[in-house]
Amino acid sequence: MHSFGRLFRVGLFGESHGPAVGVLIDGCPAGLPLGPKDFAADLDRRRPGARGTTARREADEPGFLSGVFDGRTTGTPLLIRFENADRDAAAYEAIKITPRPGHADFVAGVKFGGFQDYRGGGHFSGRVTVGLVAAGVVAKRLIRPVAIGARLVEAGGETEIDRAVEAVLRDGDSIGGIVECTAQDVPAGLGEPFFDAAESLLAHVVFAIPGVRGIEFGAGFQAARMRGSEHNDPIVDVKGRTATNHAGGIAGGITNGNPLVFRVAVKPTSSLPRPQATVDLRTGEPGRIVAAGRHDACLALRMPVIIEAATAIVLADLMLLEQRIPRVRKDG
Amino acid sequence: MHSFGRLFRVGLFGESHGPAVGVLIDGCPAGLPLGPKDFAADLDRRRPGARGTTARREADEPGFLSGVFDGRTTGTPLLIRFENADRDAAAYEAIKITPRPGHADFVAGVKFGGFQDYRGGGHFSGRVTVGLVAAGVVAKRLIRPVAIGARLVEAGGETEIDRAVEAVLRDGDSIGGIVECTAQDVPAGLGEPFFDAAESLLAHVVFAIPGVRGIEFGAGFQAARMRGSEHNDPIVDVKGRTATNHAGGIAGGITNGNPLVFRVAVKPTSSLPRPQATVDLRTGEPGRIVAAGRHDACLALRMPVIIEAATAIVLADLMLLEQRIPRVRKDG
Amino acid sequence: MHSFGRLFRVGLFGESHGPAVGVLIDGCPAGLPLGPKDFAADLDRRRPGARGTTARREADEPGFLSGVFDGRTTGTPLLIRFENADRDAAAYEAIKITPRPGHADFVAGVKFGGFQDYRGGGHFSGRVTVGLVAAGVVAKRLIRPVAIGARLVEAGGETEIDRAVEAVLRDGDSIGGIVECTAQDVPAGLGEPFFDAAESLLAHVVFAIPGVRGIEFGAGFQAARMRGSEHNDPIVDVKGRTATNHAGGIAGGITNGNPLVFRVAVKPTSSLPRPQATVDLRTGEPGRIVAAGRHDACLALRMPVIIEAATAIVLADLMLLEQRIPRVRKDG
Amino acid sequence: MHSFGRLFRVGLFGESHGPAVGVLIDGCPAGLPLGPKDFAADLDRRRPGARGTTARREADEPGFLSGVFDGRTTGTPLLIRFENADRDAAAYEAIKITPRPGHADFVAGVKFGGFQDYRGGGHFSGRVTVGLVAAGVVAKRLIRPVAIGARLVEAGGETEIDRAVEAVLRDGDSIGGIVECTAQDVPAGLGEPFFDAAESLLAHVVFAIPGVRGIEFGAGFQAARMRGSEHNDPIVDVKGRTATNHAGGIAGGITNGNPLVFRVAVKPTSSLPRPQATVDLRTGEPGRIVAAGRHDACLALRMPVIIEAATAIVLADLMLLEQRIPRVRKDG
Repeated sequence: MHSFGRLFRVGLFGESHGPAVGVLIDGCPAGLPLGPKDFAADLDRRRPGARGTTARREADEPGFLSGVFDGRTTGTPLLIRFENADRDAAAYEAIKITPRPGHADFVAGVKFGGFQDYRGGGHFSGRVTVGLVAAGVVAKRLIRPVAIGARLVEAGGETEIDRAVEAVLRDGDSIGGIVECTAQDVPAGLGEPFFDAAESLLAHVVFAIPGVRGIEFGAGFQAARMRGSEHNDPIVDVKGRTATNHAGGIAGGITNGNPLVFRVAVKPTSSLPRPQATVDLRTGEPGRIVAAGRHDACLALRMPVIIEAATAIVLADLMLLEQRIPRVRKDG
Repeated sequence: MHSFGRLFRVGLFGESHGPAVGVLIDGCPAGLPLGPKDFAADLDRRRPGARGTTARREADEPGFLSGVFDGRTTGTPLLIRFENADRDAAAYEAIKITPRPGHADFVAGVKFGGFQDYRGGGHFSGRVTVGLVAAGVVAKRLIRPVAIGARLVEAGGETEIDRAVEAVLRDGDSIGGIVECTAQDVPAGLGEPFFDAAESLLAHVVFAIPGVRGIEFGAGFQAARMRGSEHNDPIVDVKGRTATNHAGGIAGGITNGNPLVFRVAVKPTSSLPRPQATVDLRTGEPGRIVAAGRHDACLALRMPVIIEAATAIVLADLMLLEQRIPRVRKDG
Repeated sequence: MHSFGRLFRVGLFGESHGPAVGVLIDGCPAGLPLGPKDFAADLDRRRPGARGTTARREADEPGFLSGVFDGRTTGTPLLIRFENADRDAAAYEAIKITPRPGHADFVAGVKFGGFQDYRGGGHFSGRVTVGLVAAGVVAKRLIRPVAIGARLVEAGGETEIDRAVEAVLRDGDSIGGIVECTAQDVPAGLGEPFFDAAESLLAHVVFAIPGVRGIEFGAGFQAARMRGSEHNDPIVDVKGRTATNHAGGIAGGITNGNPLVFRVAVKPTSSLPRPQATVDLRTGEPGRIVAAGRHDACLALRMPVIIEAATAIVLADLMLLEQRIPRVRKDG
Repeated sequence: MHSFGRLFRVGLFGESHGPAVGVLIDGCPAGLPLGPKDFAADLDRRRPGARGTTARREADEPGFLSGVFDGRTTGTPLLIRFENADRDAAAYEAIKITPRPGHADFVAGVKFGGFQDYRGGGHFSGRVTVGLVAAGVVAKRLIRPVAIGARLVEAGGETEIDRAVEAVLRDGDSIGGIVECTAQDVPAGLGEPFFDAAESLLAHVVFAIPGVRGIEFGAGFQAARMRGSEHNDPIVDVKGRTATNHAGGIAGGITNGNPLVFRVAVKPTSSLPRPQATVDLRTGEPGRIVAAGRHDACLALRMPVIIEAATAIVLADLMLLEQRIPRVRKDG
C-alpha cells in the first residue's frame, strides 16, 4: 500500500512532474488547530536552497482540500496538496532508454510495464516526501510534549559537514551521510511484542524514504561487538530510567521511557553531474546517461526533517493506540 | 497487531511457559504439500543444542490444528501449534520485583498493568520465534525457486565464531553478532515505492525478532561514506543486472533482480550467569537479579534461520501480490 | 477508516461545502486507459437534474492530480478531485443549534466535539459519493467483462416510479425506494469463508452509502419464509449453474458463477420542505428546523449508479486477489 | 482475510472434522478476568440439543493456549481452541462427486482446486461459529454495561416458533427465520462516516455467519415505503434521544445513543432428510445427494447467540477506537 498506520493513517500521492503531490491523512483527531503557517518551518528545512541541494524551486504552499474547517481539524480525512510549479519534464526523455544507475527507472519499467510516469522519477521522486513532511507537522503537534530532533551527524564519512559538501561539489560527485534522530519524553509502553515492535514500525517508515540504506537503534551495530555485561542498561529507578541507553529507549519492542535514539544511513545521491554507465534498453549495448534535472550533491542534508516526520507519524499512531492522545483536542 | 502481511498473513501466539506457542497463517495457497517432516531441518537449526545455546529442550513437533488435509494445505487458515514441555516457571518469580536489565520485564509491567505472563518473559520470549520459523518453512516452499540463505558472519566482533563463543562462556558473559542474509533468484518488481518498499517490509519483520538492533541493505552504513560515483551500481544488461550490488538488490524500494543482501546486528544475550544491577520495584532501592532459567551465551547463533523465515514471509507476501505465486498449487 | 479494500483500496475525502471532494485509489493496475470522458456517463447518472432531485449544480469534472500519465494509469496512487462550485454555506448556520432529524448533525457534534464542518452535512454529505462513483468507473473497467446493472425497482412502495415522485413533490414530502443490483459473468470463486464473504464485503461498502437501511441477497428476507426443499438451488451442470438463484449467486460466502443479485433499501430523504421537530441544543427545549439547502425528494433516484460503484469496487478487489485481473493492463 | 477488526481483531480457524476449531483474538485489553465458566452460557445457547437442532454432540470446552494467565487476560494474543470430538467423516465422501445444493461444496472445489477439506463442509461449516461465539463472550465483557440481546422472532414465516419447528420436522424439510438483535446503552459516536459506518461493520460480520441472507437496520426495508415526514426520528433531548427509532440507533453511520436495532434473515437449512437434485461432477449428468451427517431443521434456532457475538465484536472494536474501553482493565 501507499499508506501506513493503524489509527493515524498516512497516504502519499503524486509525481515529480505531475500536477501535484500531497498526503491524505485518515484518523487525525478533531480540534487540532492547523493552518499553512504551521508548516512553514518544517517545509523550509526540507526545501532546497543550501549549498549542496537541488536548484528546483517550489513554493510548497499547503492547500487543505478537506478536513480543516475554521482553522481546526474536523476529524475526517485531511487532504493536503502541494502544487508542482517548477516542472521541466523534457529533461527526462533519455531515461526511458538508458535508465539511471541507482534510480528506480529500471524497476519502475519492469513493475509497471512501461506505463509509469518516468519524468523525474515520477512517484519514486524525493519530491513526494513533501507530503510526508506535511504529515509529520500534524503528527508532531499531536504527540506534544514529545519532542523529536534529528540532525546530520556525518556526511561523506566526515563530521565537518560543510567541508565535506564543498569538497564533493568541487569534485562533481555526491556523498551520503548519517542522520541521528532522538525523541525526548516518549511515554513508556508504546509498541507491541513482535510485529508491531516500535523498531519495526519506525524502520518501516524510515525505509520508505528514498535513499535510506540502514537503521540502527541505540548501540546498533556496535552492540553486536559488545558483551552483555557491558551492553545491558541497568535500571535505576521505578520509572525505568536506565544508567546507560544502549537499547535506544526500546526494550522488547516497547518504549521504556528513556530517550528514543536511532541512526539512519543515507546513500550518496544517485544523480551526478557527470556521465554514468548504464545499458541501452533498445540495443542491450552499454549506454551512457547524464543525469538531467536538478539534484542534491548530498541528499542527506535535507533528510533530518523527513526522518523526524517518519518518527512523529509512528509515535502519533502508537500514542493514539495507547489512548495517550484523545480523539478530540479541546485544548488546541 | 501481532500479525503481519497483506496476502500471506502470519500471526504469532503463545508464551514461554504457557501451554503452547505457534502461528496462524492466513492466505496460504491451497495444494501445497506439507507435513511435519518438512519442518525438521529449520526447527533443528533454531533449536538449542550447540555450545553457547540454552539448555532448554523442546521436541518442537508441529501440530496442524487446521488448514492441512490429506497432506496438503487447504487454502483456509493454517494453525501450527508447538506444545511447551520443558517449563520451569518457579525460576521466574523474582523478576516481578527486580526486572531484568535488557529484558521486557519492566515495560511489560507498564504496558499490561501487571497482568502479563512474566514467566520466562511470557509472550516476549524468544520461544515464540518457533512459530515464525514454522511460517518461514511454509513461505520458503511457496517462493521456490527463490533461495534464501543466512549465516552468522561475526560474533562478539570476531569472525572466528567458535573461538568467540568459547571465550565468552569461559568469562561467564554473553556476546552478540552479525547475520548476513542473501536471497537468490528474487524476481524484479517486488515492493512498492514508499510505505511498502521491500526494505520497509523486510526491516519490519526483522525488527520483530527479539534482540535485533540494526539492519542495513547492500553497502548499508558504509554507503554513507562512499561517493556516488563509487556507490552507484552500473546496469549491465536488459535484465537489470548490475556490475556491483551496493544497493543490495533493491532500487526505489523495488527488487531489481540482483541478489537481495542485508545484514542484521544482534545484541548480546541480556541474561547473564552473573548478578546484574536493577531496581527493586517495591522499594525503589537498587536491587540485584540473577537471570534464572536457561539462556544462550550468544543468541545470534540461532538467528540465521529466524531471519531467513522473516525474509521468506515478506517475499511470499510480495510474490502473491505480484501474482508470481498462484492461489492453488497444483504442482505440489 | 475512510478507505476500503485490500488490493484495490479506495479512500474518500471532502466535505459538501469545502473546496473539493474526491477519491484516492491505491492499487489500481498500471496501463488502464483513463480520461475524463470515461467518467461522464456514470457521473451524469449520479448528477441531479431529474424531477425529484436536488437543484444543486456541479460540473463534476474529474481532475487527475496523480496516477495518470499519457492517458493511462501508472500503477501508483490515483487521486481524482472534484471541485465544489455551487456552495451556499450560509444556509446551514441553524443546524449547529437545531440538528436536523435523520441527519448526522447531532452525532457529528458528539463524535468530533463540535469541530466538524457542519455546512451541508460536511463529510457526511451525499456529495462525497461522487468520489465513490469515480472509483466505480475505474473498477468497472478493471472487471470487464463482468457487467453490473442497478435500477430503482420501487419508490415509496410503488413500482410506478414517476407517479410516486410526482405525488410526493405535490405533498412536500420525501420517499425512499428499493434498488436491485445484478452482476453478470461474475467468475466463481470470489470471496472467502467467514469474514471476507462476498456478502460481507458488498454489504460493507453498500452500507457506507448514506441512506441505506437494508440489504438482501437472492431470496433475501423471503428466504426466511421458505422451506429448504423450495429454497435450495439445484445444481444443473459442471459449471455450477443452478436451476433457480435463491442464493443470489453466492454460496458459503463465495461467488458460484450464477448472476449476483441483491436488493438495497433506501430511506426517504431526511431533508423535507417543511419544518421538523428537533431539540434546541442551547436550551434543551423543543425546536424546529427547516432544512435549508437543496435536496432530493427521493434520493433513491440517484442511487443505482452509486450501488453499481460499490459493487464494482468489491469485485475489483476480489478479482485482483484471485489473480483474475493482471497487475499491468497491456491490452487497454 | 479470515480475521476482522482494527483494534479487537478476531481470526477464526478450523474445520468441521479436523482436530479443532477456535479463535485467535488480537488486541484484547489486559486484566480482564476470564475462565472456562464464563463461556458456558453462550456456548450452551449455540450448542445443539433442542428439537430441530443437529444431533452432533461436542463438549465445547474452551482451551486457552495463550493470552490468559492467573485467570486474567495478559494483553497479548488470546488463543481459544475447541477440540472436535464427535467426528464422523465417512458420511461425507459422496459430496466430492455430487455437491450438495445450498452448500459451499461446489464453490470450495473451484476456489481451492479440489484441495479443500470437504468433510462436513470443512472450514465452511457452521461448526466454526463456536470460535465466533467464544470471541463474543470476551467482547461482551469488554463492552459492559452495553447489553446485547438477540432472539428469534419468526421461523418459517410464523411467530409461533415451536409449532413451526414441529411442522417442518414432521414434513422432513427445513425452515429459516428472522432474528432481531438489540443493543442497549450503546454510547453515541461509534462508527465513521462512509466505509466504517456502524452498519457497514455490523453487516460485514453478520454476513460472515453461514446462512444469513439479509440484514436491515431500524425500519429497514419498510423505510423504503415510508415518507420522510413519517420516517424521520424527532430529536427530543440534548442527549439525542429520539421519539421514534426508525433509524435503529444509527445516523450517518454513527451510533446516536438510542438502542441499536437490526434484523437478520436466515435461510432454511440446506441439508434435508430427503434426496436432492444436483449434478454428478464426473459425468455432468444429473445426480442425487442425500445430506448425510447431522443437521438442524431450523438453523435459525441457534443463531441469536452467534449474532450477539458478531455485534459485540464490532462494538468492542469501535469502543476501543473511541477510547471508551481502557487498554488495561484494572477493575476486573
